Amino acid sequence: MQEISSKLQRHLPRVAVDVMGLDFGPEEMLSGVCSALQTDGHRFEKIYLVGDTTVLTPLLERYGFNNSSVVEFIHASQVIEMQEKPIYTLKHKKDASMFRAIDLVKNGTADAILSCGNTGSLMAGGTLKLGPIAGVERPALASVIPTRQQRFILIDVGANPSSTAKHLAHNAILGSHYAQAILEKTNPRIGLLTIGTEEGKGNEIVHAAHSILKNLSLQNFNYQGLIEGFHLFNNTVDVVVCDGFVGNILLKTCESLFYHLKEYLKEELQKNYMRKMGAFLSQGVFLNMKKQFSPEHFSGAPLLGLNGWIFKSHGSSKEKSIAGALRTCLRCLEMYDLKTIQNDIASTNLMIEKLKENE
Amino acid sequence: MQEISSKLQRHLPRVAVDVMGLDFGPEEMLSGVCSALQTDGHRFEKIYLVGDTTVLTPLLERYGFNNSSVVEFIHASQVIEMQEKPIYTLKHKKDASMFRAIDLVKNGTADAILSCGNTGSLMAGGTLKLGPIAGVERPALASVIPTRQQRFILIDVGANPSSTAKHLAHNAILGSHYAQAILEKTNPRIGLLTIGTEEGKGNEIVHAAHSILKNLSLQNFNYQGLIEGFHLFNNTVDVVVCDGFVGNILLKTCESLFYHLKEYLKEELQKNYMRKMGAFLSQGVFLNMKKQFSPEHFSGAPLLGLNGWIFKSHGSSKEKSIAGALRTCLRCLEMYDLKTIQNDIASTNLMIEKLKENE
Repeated sequence: MQEISSKLQRHLPRVAVDVMGLDFGPEEMLSGVCSALQTDGHRFEKIYLVGDTTVLTPLLERYGFNNSSVVEFIHASQVIEMQEKPIYTLKHKKDASMFRAIDLVKNGTADAILSCGNTGSLMAGGTLKLGPIAGVERPALASVIPTRQQRFILIDVGANPSSTAKHLAHNAILGSHYAQAILEKTNPRIGLLTIGTEEGKGNEIVHAAHSILKNLSLQNFNYQGLIEGFHLFNNTVDVVVCDGFVGNILLKTCESLFYHLKEYLKEELQKNYMRKMGAFLSQGVFLNMKKQFSPEHFSGAPLLGLNGWIFKSHGSSKEKSIAGALRTCLRCLEMYDLKTIQNDIASTNLMIEKLKENE
Repeated sequence: MQEISSKLQRHLPRVAVDVMGLDFGPEEMLSGVCSALQTDGHRFEKIYLVGDTTVLTPLLERYGFNNSSVVEFIHASQVIEMQEKPIYTLKHKKDASMFRAIDLVKNGTADAILSCGNTGSLMAGGTLKLGPIAGVERPALASVIPTRQQRFILIDVGANPSSTAKHLAHNAILGSHYAQAILEKTNPRIGLLTIGTEEGKGNEIVHAAHSILKNLSLQNFNYQGLIEGFHLFNNTVDVVVCDGFVGNILLKTCESLFYHLKEYLKEELQKNYMRKMGAFLSQGVFLNMKKQFSPEHFSGAPLLGLNGWIFKSHGSSKEKSIAGALRTCLRCLEMYDLKTIQNDIASTNLMIEKLKENE
């Protein structure tokens, strides 16, 4: 950790991009990188494009990468398919672009990897190759959720579906630091998600995590207590802490409900001439809505808690989402202080031991 | 169970209504009952209004109940407040309207109770006084969720936050029967909610429940397998099975996201003259949307799996919601066959034993 932190003081961010394994093919990834370089090229030291060079080299010129000092190609002969199991890919696809990209982070050549590929393999490969930060047992996936007033962080959205109280407490710390970097909040409000704020409701794991978090007094750790489902969209907290089972279901359901309502409105607004006219006059509303709630600006969910940076984007990511994910990546590398996290995790683990002794 | 079933063949539904303890006072409950009687009065044998008669009697005439042969008042001297804990109310509020109403079901005077009061006390009181159906360990709260194409049942939405695989399997059976009654589906599609449909994803409890459900071959039991968050709103299944922790968070989050988007649209549509004009021309869309997704038509969540019917409506229910809940109640009493459920639960428990032996 200290090594990475001090390295980052010496150089600009270096990102390894897994160019293969996304739904719309390597061209889409290259377009995304191209778009990110146009706006933020000066903020990168290096972008390593990892993939099959026999496929990639003919594309070099099209994206203007042949004269770039920032972009460098790294060959990898294999591609991980979406349906392949981590246990299979780890054993049989050692030269996959995803694993080669993680290796670049592992050996210190890059600071972060971005991939739109197979989530299971990315998480398993990342965890095995980079290892967790000292004191952390399980990494957590964080996602940024837009609302009309603000954005909030949901952590964990699927890395660890069977969390202990300790894991939830760690998620709270990782999420707090992530919110400082990505939402630019100096003192983000943390809430622990449950099914009733009265004492005794919820389940035992949540009660135990609540006890730990209430007792923590870390710098910039602003625990607001238990929250319920209806608090998510009313600006109660900046970080919503839950296990990966609840978080993943919640994220997918919210995305699908939003899409569902959008489709409903679209269909209804086309039903007769008057409505079509109304839709035309108020089209600014729908454009704003799309802009405000679009996941493109907030893509790139990091797997937090590891000795290095792993960013995951949707398999179906397109150019804009990929550029957005690279921006997320930049912000994290520029802002997130891994040393402080390590200290906070150590203090939390001490607190957990103390609580156990007093039981 | 058999007693209730056979009783229902002899008479029309008799419902005990807990008139006290809701946010907008007993008048709102009486308005709701009045509204239900206007449209469906002929379908009830009796509605028992349970509450403080010193408060209720002066209101009799206003709602036209003084000449009604259907409505009957039952006195109860105490009221359970929203913030009171079940353990306290069970001990110190024995003459509460809610508990008196449950007693009417317990002693066979009524078939069901409807309450908008304190959920914890209603569930604890209901479970203790009525007891579970033979073979069921924990009751489950079911909620009807509207979508643009159809409606689906989410079960459990908060009764049992720490479910075992057996509880989840029971939720599937209770939900299937409820969908037959309330969605009028002869062969409702059942899905088990998890975070990835590939083998190995999710958690151990879900895997075990999936094994049980795959092996069940009950009449009208149509298990479709594992589903994810994004399947909820695209008409994949009619019944979504989960534990009370996930279900409660999901229900509250969806309600809040829907409200959030509605408020966003309202605000944006008022921003300038052109948009206001557009909103006016397409107002039919928003009226339809309100109608389609309004919870009023689907209020009254039953606590399933008990020897009698307990219906819970929001504490903030108003006239329309209460009338809607009474209609839900009627449908269940007319359609739901408790005897078949008992048989299905017995077959499921046998299957669980068999799976254990084969392990």
